[in-house]
Amino acid sequence: MTKTETAHLVADVFNTDFNHNLNYSTLGREILNTAEQHAEKRDFGLTQIRKSNQSWVLSRLTIEMNRMPHVFETYSIDTWIENIYRMFTNRNFCIKVSNSTDDSDPEVVGYARSVWALIDNDSRQPLDLTSLYGETFEKWLYPENPCPIDGHSRIRPLSSYSSEVKYAIRYNDIDCNGHVNSVKYLEHICNLFNLEFYKKHRLKRIELAYVAESYFGDTLHFFMTEIEPLRYQIEIAKSSTADETPTTVVRSFVTFA
Amino acid sequence: MTKTETAHLVADVFNTDFNHNLNYSTLGREILNTAEQHAEKRDFGLTQIRKSNQSWVLSRLTIEMNRMPHVFETYSIDTWIENIYRMFTNRNFCIKVSNSTDDSDPEVVGYARSVWALIDNDSRQPLDLTSLYGETFEKWLYPENPCPIDGHSRIRPLSSYSSEVKYAIRYNDIDCNGHVNSVKYLEHICNLFNLEFYKKHRLKRIELAYVAESYFGDTLHFFMTEIEPLRYQIEIAKSSTADETPTTVVRSFVTFA
Repeated sequence: MTKTETAHLVADVFNTDFNHNLNYSTLGREILNTAEQHAEKRDFGLTQIRKSNQSWVLSRLTIEMNRMPHVFETYSIDTWIENIYRMFTNRNFCIKVSNSTDDSDPEVVGYARSVWALIDNDSRQPLDLTSLYGETFEKWLYPENPCPIDGHSRIRPLSSYSSEVKYAIRYNDIDCNGHVNSVKYLEHICNLFNLEFYKKHRLKRIELAYVAESYFGDTLHFFMTEIEPLRYQIEIAKSSTADETPTTVVRSFVTFA
Repeated sequence: MTKTETAHLVADVFNTDFNHNLNYSTLGREILNTAEQHAEKRDFGLTQIRKSNQSWVLSRLTIEMNRMPHVFETYSIDTWIENIYRMFTNRNFCIKVSNSTDDSDPEVVGYARSVWALIDNDSRQPLDLTSLYGETFEKWLYPENPCPIDGHSRIRPLSSYSSEVKYAIRYNDIDCNGHVNSVKYLEHICNLFNLEFYKKHRLKRIELAYVAESYFGDTLHFFMTEIEPLRYQIEIAKSSTADETPTTVVRSFVTFA
């Protein structure tokens, strides 16, 4: 078993956007699926941790793409663990497009970084990874494998905003963990920009900091401000009643090129 | 080259719903992707028809599932052409779950039926399939392959409704054809029902009749009525301004078990 797990995929027609490029929601979903496959094959995936009443919780996700796979292109996602710390672990990803049938000279088109915690399902508290999975993890650590994109930015609370969009959480937003899926926030953030904007600009980098969970019945509020040209800060908050003050769920930066 | 094309898939964690079953939007997308792969390999896929300034337009889609693939299950989608007529062609699908590693005894879990027309991109008029692709199609027809689910129902215009939900079309709804993707209507219809409902009932059959296209900037109106217990008729209409009378885009029946 190698330290790296690789998923082989195709940018199928109905996973591409109006520009015939793979859409970010499919890429995000496949990034998470590849992470799960890596963990599953190495005995700390969902099947195993559920037996101990535990869950992996995504805390940070940053994706930076030089270009998106184009329709019909085959692409791959490599994932490996950079390191573990007491309460979290860093997992990285490399996205490559195959330019030949034998995949001998793939083109690196982007990278992603993520931070995860393992929680106890009852207490919702993070568990100590160095003692719980310490020995198991040790052999999979691959800090020397490069992930050349910048680390996760520190995202401070948004102090002011120029727009607010509300969205009532629906059935398809909820994943197997019973809460709004991490990638659905990314999809809803992409939806804050209109088609004319996407005709001129390409989403180059998206950073998500997951602060709390949201559930069916909640309303999400997307507060957005342009902090510098083509760089936006977006804060997602939730409220469960109309007069409740929204509380932060996700903080995000998106950068277009 | 066989008459049937088969896609081999896995119900990955992040393509399943809160019940750990594959969600309908992923299944629908993979059904369309498999159809495209079948056509592509047989020289009437997107790559080829674009050269002639033509597009395949989905007119009807009916999916009926005895059960959905469960998380981690491997499943396959077979597709084949039942027949061609002057202005349209019927394409069917069979969805199977593999119960063994060598896939020797798969379990059929559902079927789908679809109707397609080939249009000229400028005139938007359907082309005569018997002369255009007659000979090419002939060798792929497989009417003897069974598709035991009921045919598409006739769906009359909705005369009255008990609920209306409005939805502004967003970036992720638009596909490579520049209009709202066929499967996105299915996803939005699934979203009309709440989580409590899904905890009690399983979506067994969904039928979609595509009447017109909708675009970025349009608002969709979902008019729904329960025509018999657990069977709903839904009509989707679009409007481009607040005072415009909505015009029909999609008619649908959904049946829960």
